Amino acid sequence: MRPSGRAPDALRDVSITTGFSHHAEGSCLIRMGGTEVLCAASVESRVPPFMRNSGLGWVTAEYGMLPRATHTRGDREAARGKQSGRTQEIQRLIGRSLRAVVDRAALGEMTITLDCDVLNADGGTRCASITGAWVALNLALRHLVKMNVIKTIPLIGQVAAVSCGLVEGAAVLDLDYQEDSSAEADANFVLTDGGIVEIQATAEKTAFGEPQFHELLALAKLGAGRLFEIQRAAVEAA
Amino acid sequence: MRPSGRAPDALRDVSITTGFSHHAEGSCLIRMGGTEVLCAASVESRVPPFMRNSGLGWVTAEYGMLPRATHTRGDREAARGKQSGRTQEIQRLIGRSLRAVVDRAALGEMTITLDCDVLNADGGTRCASITGAWVALNLALRHLVKMNVIKTIPLIGQVAAVSCGLVEGAAVLDLDYQEDSSAEADANFVLTDGGIVEIQATAEKTAFGEPQFHELLALAKLGAGRLFEIQRAAVEAA
Amino acid sequence: MRPSGRAPDALRDVSITTGFSHHAEGSCLIRMGGTEVLCAASVESRVPPFMRNSGLGWVTAEYGMLPRATHTRGDREAARGKQSGRTQEIQRLIGRSLRAVVDRAALGEMTITLDCDVLNADGGTRCASITGAWVALNLALRHLVKMNVIKTIPLIGQVAAVSCGLVEGAAVLDLDYQEDSSAEADANFVLTDGGIVEIQATAEKTAFGEPQFHELLALAKLGAGRLFEIQRAAVEAA
Amino acid sequence: MRPSGRAPDALRDVSITTGFSHHAEGSCLIRMGGTEVLCAASVESRVPPFMRNSGLGWVTAEYGMLPRATHTRGDREAARGKQSGRTQEIQRLIGRSLRAVVDRAALGEMTITLDCDVLNADGGTRCASITGAWVALNLALRHLVKMNVIKTIPLIGQVAAVSCGLVEGAAVLDLDYQEDSSAEADANFVLTDGGIVEIQATAEKTAFGEPQFHELLALAKLGAGRLFEIQRAAVEAA
Amino acid sequence: MRPSGRAPDALRDVSITTGFSHHAEGSCLIRMGGTEVLCAASVESRVPPFMRNSGLGWVTAEYGMLPRATHTRGDREAARGKQSGRTQEIQRLIGRSLRAVVDRAALGEMTITLDCDVLNADGGTRCASITGAWVALNLALRHLVKMNVIKTIPLIGQVAAVSCGLVEGAAVLDLDYQEDSSAEADANFVLTDGGIVEIQATAEKTAFGEPQFHELLALAKLGAGRLFEIQRAAVEAA
Amino acid sequence: MRPSGRAPDALRDVSITTGFSHHAEGSCLIRMGGTEVLCAASVESRVPPFMRNSGLGWVTAEYGMLPRATHTRGDREAARGKQSGRTQEIQRLIGRSLRAVVDRAALGEMTITLDCDVLNADGGTRCASITGAWVALNLALRHLVKMNVIKTIPLIGQVAAVSCGLVEGAAVLDLDYQEDSSAEADANFVLTDGGIVEIQATAEKTAFGEPQFHELLALAKLGAGRLFEIQRAAVEAA
Repeated sequence: MRPSGRAPDALRDVSITTGFSHHAEGSCLIRMGGTEVLCAASVESRVPPFMRNSGLGWVTAEYGMLPRATHTRGDREAARGKQSGRTQEIQRLIGRSLRAVVDRAALGEMTITLDCDVLNADGGTRCASITGAWVALNLALRHLVKMNVIKTIPLIGQVAAVSCGLVEGAAVLDLDYQEDSSAEADANFVLTDGGIVEIQATAEKTAFGEPQFHELLALAKLGAGRLFEIQRAAVEAA
Repeated sequence: MRPSGRAPDALRDVSITTGFSHHAEGSCLIRMGGTEVLCAASVESRVPPFMRNSGLGWVTAEYGMLPRATHTRGDREAARGKQSGRTQEIQRLIGRSLRAVVDRAALGEMTITLDCDVLNADGGTRCASITGAWVALNLALRHLVKMNVIKTIPLIGQVAAVSCGLVEGAAVLDLDYQEDSSAEADANFVLTDGGIVEIQATAEKTAFGEPQFHELLALAKLGAGRLFEIQRAAVEAA
Repeated sequence: MRPSGRAPDALRDVSITTGFSHHAEGSCLIRMGGTEVLCAASVESRVPPFMRNSGLGWVTAEYGMLPRATHTRGDREAARGKQSGRTQEIQRLIGRSLRAVVDRAALGEMTITLDCDVLNADGGTRCASITGAWVALNLALRHLVKMNVIKTIPLIGQVAAVSCGLVEGAAVLDLDYQEDSSAEADANFVLTDGGIVEIQATAEKTAFGEPQFHELLALAKLGAGRLFEIQRAAVEAA
Repeated sequence: MRPSGRAPDALRDVSITTGFSHHAEGSCLIRMGGTEVLCAASVESRVPPFMRNSGLGWVTAEYGMLPRATHTRGDREAARGKQSGRTQEIQRLIGRSLRAVVDRAALGEMTITLDCDVLNADGGTRCASITGAWVALNLALRHLVKMNVIKTIPLIGQVAAVSCGLVEGAAVLDLDYQEDSSAEADANFVLTDGGIVEIQATAEKTAFGEPQFHELLALAKLGAGRLFEIQRAAVEAA
Repeated sequence: MRPSGRAPDALRDVSITTGFSHHAEGSCLIRMGGTEVLCAASVESRVPPFMRNSGLGWVTAEYGMLPRATHTRGDREAARGKQSGRTQEIQRLIGRSLRAVVDRAALGEMTITLDCDVLNADGGTRCASITGAWVALNLALRHLVKMNVIKTIPLIGQVAAVSCGLVEGAAVLDLDYQEDSSAEADANFVLTDGGIVEIQATAEKTAFGEPQFHELLALAKLGAGRLFEIQRAAVEAA
Repeated sequence: MRPSGRAPDALRDVSITTGFSHHAEGSCLIRMGGTEVLCAASVESRVPPFMRNSGLGWVTAEYGMLPRATHTRGDREAARGKQSGRTQEIQRLIGRSLRAVVDRAALGEMTITLDCDVLNADGGTRCASITGAWVALNLALRHLVKMNVIKTIPLIGQVAAVSCGLVEGAAVLDLDYQEDSSAEADANFVLTDGGIVEIQATAEKTAFGEPQFHELLALAKLGAGRLFEIQRAAVEAA
């Protein structure tokens, strides 16, 4: 039995509220159980120096956590003067994940920055960020189409992310903070409809076996399928 | 006529939603028109080194703005590696304003940190932060009373803040971004029921006269009175 | 009775020695009692990027305090690797104060930087910086006229600053460090001949009343009038 | 045909020279083709604050690349004043990988820091770092046994890492820089004799399929088995 | 003929005004021609961690230059967020030079920090700093004797510094900025009555010969002798 | 008798292995006893902004020490976020030393950066860096000649560096770490065939005499002569 009473293959309650940032070209507040992330897409009509004259667009991400998003207050990274290794690792992952479903030639020389800011944290913030960022990105691209900046939405698919883990020997889907703290292994899967964009699987204590890994991957595909539906519903309702 | 159609002495719509941060001892989301600030109070059972063994508590604040809270995306301070002068100025102001209504001897050697994070900005973010932070602080202190950490709420009054300005020669209350950008003078008043905690009045172009300053102060007292009611209602409903 | 024996409305001894920086286009050492600030104006024939092609000039300020300007040695900000919030707040104030009396269109696309470095501190360093910086700025502008860079001095008036405070319930002018440490309220006024440029009034312990604020403002106008005379005398003697 | 002429399942030439750092408790220079990493283990008889009085030891890692380890010179991170996100990501991975095979209770309250510095880079530097760091760690632990600081070597197995990738549709083992630059997918596997410690698989362009992932995993197990032999030989020869 | 009209072996006019910093235990303003450095000695009754329980005192120095001490305004190091390599090199030199004449056992576990801040620069600022710092240090030590903190002044001699250089083939003493800019070689000598504390000799263009070096050393001894007299006179007059 | 058994005028064993960095235009690993420094020369076809359109080339250096190059592990400068004063002092010295033997007009507007990274430290790392950097620079220049970028090697001579010191009253050549730690004086000499490029002589405890300085200089000339031979042999064998 999981602490939350969920079945091993059950996601937490997920909701996506679009338009949370008043000024962003696309935005949403994604909730996965007690985790809440504000995702905002900002469009700029130029690319970073290393991309200039390539004809390609750029999609990147920044991640942050409000100091009191967590059980005990954490340092404010702006006050400490640097982003932690964990923060940088996560924002690099978000950026890579979204670029995997963008047709950057069709986007053209523009930059879209996804800001993912965690307002409340209860496990799985990087996965919620990716899933929400796809919605914010989609809405920003729709806005560009409506403004006649681009002709069609330069997306080649959906991308969503979900964590799975081994808790007391059992494979479970979408860990909350309590499960995450005691898991023997923790894996984040970034998936498209039919493919793998990124896998980050980590043994927390000792190595785990290949069959267990396959169980986690199967759960992830199940969860991602459900998240794709919620993403589509949110975009259609916007 | 103001761009928003408001009367010179009218506040924007104000609402305060308590409990927005799940983990904080006290929190609220304050909205003043299009400005939205998440205020969270965190309690720690120790004081900074310079206060130790003084028998006094400490109340401090940190302020931040999400990169896309504004019309065009701003740099993330954590990524740039330092807080701007403006950020530091504001967070110092918030801390001073709240300390003016706390009985620090009655609080005892604890620290309460108020995190004020702007989710959406449309002018007046520092004033909204102070007004909301008082609510978050009050709720955190109630929590400490309920937990039997302290006997009574160590507050000696309410504090709220409001901006006023001279726009096209006329004194107006509670400037939004559009008015703020074109104001001849801009003044932030931090007030208690019967007194002044802080005045920051600035000529944006050239010096202004003393009679005009008095008009601004009169508007501020009017606005603060209304904010005190809204603060009380929010705390009582929590 | 004040610790210094001064009357409530008496300034400390003020002197302004021009030309202290050998290389600056304009400079002075201003002494207000035991406070000594070296103010140097540097002219550059370009403006910051955000001002380019605006036809307007820019006036800005930087503030610093030598480590042993104070009773006990403070950290050197260059060694610590950042300027404190207090330093940034003060240098922003100095810049705003001077811009309020400059005709930036008449100046044209040049930048004048005012460096205000405190050699000895005994209270009121930000006010002395503003008062001295106006003299340094004036001398630098005279130099530009003499060099035929500009036709006339693009100043629309004088600006000076003075602190006032409530000490043991009484309003007094131009606080020294000892009074400043024990004041119930502390207010800095930046004034022109007939107007207000900036007011920063702060309750140090609890809120103060409006009548007291008016007493402080009246003292400030008195003090500023005397400082204007001293500024003019210094400039004429240069 | 691979650019290097290697078979799809062939590692590059691997050699491990122990004792390269004169002062370290354990060290080696690992070469995998043109990639050379100096791995040094340093022992300290205390743990970081968050581990104190836990009875557990700590193993951590730092990673660096000499500026001219690469084809074109890169910035020196010490001169730029911060470690890149990539550097932090890698050093966190190395530390986690080694902790997965250490019995930290048997180690006791000591810290072992693995410094992995890339002298020459030709792809796969993070994998070479992990494989070499295990050798340096093993030698440092042997040294502690010889010094009678601990009774037995607190290792529960070997850990090695190898990269695999999809290059022009084919799964290949141990990518060099040229292959890495053009790979469709890139996966780093950190493995023990029978288990998985970490998987980081990334689609470089678009998503890849599950069958392809299984091919990569199979290659990785093959490669890791060969690396375990080379590690054992190096340690025995030391 | 030197640009200043001085003989090859002539120092510039030197003066030392003691007591310039009101709060420092010892201080002076040293002028060598157009170079002016404020030297302040601060006493603390503890030593840095690496010196604790050694029974020895510590003497250290910090160096800074006001932004407009130079012909064109330089960046403020506090604003840039770090001290330049040049600044660090100079302050390390000043600290070493003074420690060479202090009996640190007789001083006991106290730290004396010498702040050397250049108000006006015209060449030779590091040498003026060392010569002035000795006076500030001496005065601070006298103060400690007067306060009965130590019995006798723990100085084993005087230390002074002077620059020499090869300008158009000729060896000259005490270079000003103009000479320094065009010198073929530049040497700073830190000397005691009979000995050498530090020599830093640098070829600015190409290597110079040993006989020339001897000429520079001879001039330096001459100049230092004169500086010792001026130091003694300043201390006696204080 | 020296701890190493060497005669007072004996260098440690010196060897120079060229080509250690696979990608650098010129490189070597220099060993002086237990000190090992990897020197790599990188060529860029542009100069820093302050040199543009001067027709002159630029030669600069960066220095680093691996954390465990020393007896006890030191902080990694990249992790601490800044280079120490010592590091900056050394890299400035290396750059100046090499520029003294380069004909920068003949080089033309290119930059050559010498990275000197200490793999193992046993005293004299700055001297070994300079001696090795000359070899790396020479090889990079030969490479440019071979590539027809320049016609002839724009070097006007050789430069090498060696440390000397007073240990228990005796002048000795090429100090190792043990001697360096206990030396009364320590001097680094950067010499060309017939001239002096830089002298840095420092009294570690109290001042030393002029005759002693001359002994040190004589030893340095002897040692440098031997290093010139080893440099030439290394370059010829490359």
